[in-house]
Amino acid sequence: MKKYNHKTLEIFIKNVLTKLKMDNKEALKVAKLIIQSDLYGVDTHGIFRLPNYVKRITEGGMNMNPNIKVIKERKSTALLDGDNGIGHIIMHKAAKLAVKKAAKTGVAWVGVKNSNHAGAGATYAMMSLKKNMVGIYLAVGSANHLPPWGGIDMLLSTNPIAIAIPAKSRPPIILDMATTNTSYGKVKLAASNNKAMPIGWMQDKEGNPITNPKDADKGFLIPIGGPKGYGLALMIGILAGTINGAAFGKDVIDFNSDFKTTTNTGHVLIALDIEAFMPFETFTNEIDNIWNVIKSSRKMDGYSDIRLPGENRHFLYEENIKEGIEINKSTILRLNEMATSLSVPLII
Amino acid sequence: MKKYNHKTLEIFIKNVLTKLKMDNKEALKVAKLIIQSDLYGVDTHGIFRLPNYVKRITEGGMNMNPNIKVIKERKSTALLDGDNGIGHIIMHKAAKLAVKKAAKTGVAWVGVKNSNHAGAGATYAMMSLKKNMVGIYLAVGSANHLPPWGGIDMLLSTNPIAIAIPAKSRPPIILDMATTNTSYGKVKLAASNNKAMPIGWMQDKEGNPITNPKDADKGFLIPIGGPKGYGLALMIGILAGTINGAAFGKDVIDFNSDFKTTTNTGHVLIALDIEAFMPFETFTNEIDNIWNVIKSSRKMDGYSDIRLPGENRHFLYEENIKEGIEINKSTILRLNEMATSLSVPLII
Repeated sequence: MKKYNHKTLEIFIKNVLTKLKMDNKEALKVAKLIIQSDLYGVDTHGIFRLPNYVKRITEGGMNMNPNIKVIKERKSTALLDGDNGIGHIIMHKAAKLAVKKAAKTGVAWVGVKNSNHAGAGATYAMMSLKKNMVGIYLAVGSANHLPPWGGIDMLLSTNPIAIAIPAKSRPPIILDMATTNTSYGKVKLAASNNKAMPIGWMQDKEGNPITNPKDADKGFLIPIGGPKGYGLALMIGILAGTINGAAFGKDVIDFNSDFKTTTNTGHVLIALDIEAFMPFETFTNEIDNIWNVIKSSRKMDGYSDIRLPGENRHFLYEENIKEGIEINKSTILRLNEMATSLSVPLII
Repeated sequence: MKKYNHKTLEIFIKNVLTKLKMDNKEALKVAKLIIQSDLYGVDTHGIFRLPNYVKRITEGGMNMNPNIKVIKERKSTALLDGDNGIGHIIMHKAAKLAVKKAAKTGVAWVGVKNSNHAGAGATYAMMSLKKNMVGIYLAVGSANHLPPWGGIDMLLSTNPIAIAIPAKSRPPIILDMATTNTSYGKVKLAASNNKAMPIGWMQDKEGNPITNPKDADKGFLIPIGGPKGYGLALMIGILAGTINGAAFGKDVIDFNSDFKTTTNTGHVLIALDIEAFMPFETFTNEIDNIWNVIKSSRKMDGYSDIRLPGENRHFLYEENIKEGIEINKSTILRLNEMATSLSVPLII
């Protein structure tokens, strides 16, 4: 696997998006938001997704010049209509709005409808950190790969949650997880890398494990904690989808197979101002303490280290900024095929 | 097992608490909040817990006449100091305050410190339903039975989340779950009933399953989805504990073994006004539709029914109101022993 400078990749994405008529400034912003995932090591949600975004754009399923606007507003809430734009730009606006409102009232809940896939949820939850706030992101996943518990009709998605909590001298604690044992992005990456999946990721309609990612369409993902994960996926779907007038359940468009129909993706961004509860310094000192206590827990046999959620991503970020982002050959091949078809300079 | 009228049980609890110098009106309120769990079939969090509450009260670990007050406030947030009162009264106040604030600004986040065990989280999340709101409850569990992923030091609790979402002609959807595969209450109930636990509930320090609930103190609970459940438990603990100045991590007092030290339990109640996003009627119609679609999913082999979260509790409630609440002999024996020692009329 070769490593690529993050700026090279950002310019590549920007070139692709401007070629497809996205505004220059917006395209660079989207490029940076996409590459942020790769920098943090979340390779399932970064540039790997670009060919799918492009396919949707070229087939007319996404609006390149959306009029994103607040259509309902209270002091601590807003409902944002994304006008079928790319999710990254919409969620960037939603997070900025949530932080602005929370600075005034202590907490804000911004719902989003008519959006699209926005990459990794942590990208937006982390935007609260700069303002000394906690960020919480919820979303309706962009394809249904999960049945209700005991069922076989895929009515639910991996509906993820991301939470970002600031620390003082330690990296912030960042949780970004699907409510299934794995995300479908990881299944796709395993397929792309020709790697077997561990037992527990997927099962078929008779409940037998699926380990070959090429058989993914014969079964479905398994929720965390069985019925509990199903319950969480359902609730997150209602909070990020239904209440915003966004698609949920049977109305979710599979963005991997239908590139024309508007997805009406729903998300939520919650910002919570820490100063509404205690001095920021006191809080971040406490988080540093929690870090230290958890890291120094005695270990179970077979474990050499205990990690805080998101711990690795910070070290990967520093490494990837310096040494470049590792991208596998098949992904580069797909990206360059796409670039060729668009007459955009290749990644070299 | 015998069935007991819920009013009989409420009066029993009220008699116990007033005997211990709780105000008459407050005692009746606590009694109703406790029995609400039993009515909904959550027998692990109802009257079953009373002997423990009483032990804490008689040993001086809980304040019978607390001065519960808001110590920090913004338009959409509040921090409530429970003054070491019983959790039920404190969380009842927190939920009322959250709903009142959310009616004005769309959403409210009320944090609580210096509280105690409050029974089932759903009790408080559901208080939002009467005002056409969504309720979300988070708490720091009252004893650490969970190590960080890969560790063996029990630094975390089952930190639960409860979410209540209103429907129209269907019962509301109520999720109330620990972030571990089971709650410690269920382990205790299994021990009390002399029943074996299924594999997946607990493991020992070498990672072997524990199925005898009498061996519970030799191991720890298993989080949902492995590292994901650990991450969720950690985040909920920080949001319900640390940010409120409540106990979290190594500072959590085990309320099953230490009855004297102030627990400083932390909780959060979030109320979200549905009308801030869409007309209430439109929303509840949609929830009814979701109910119907999920219920009619085709079933997996071995499953005769698909349930919405909290579906059963509503039918149990109606049944228990009419026919009485089933309580096992050993629990009645414990309750009546306690009543005898307090010279309070027994449950007959």
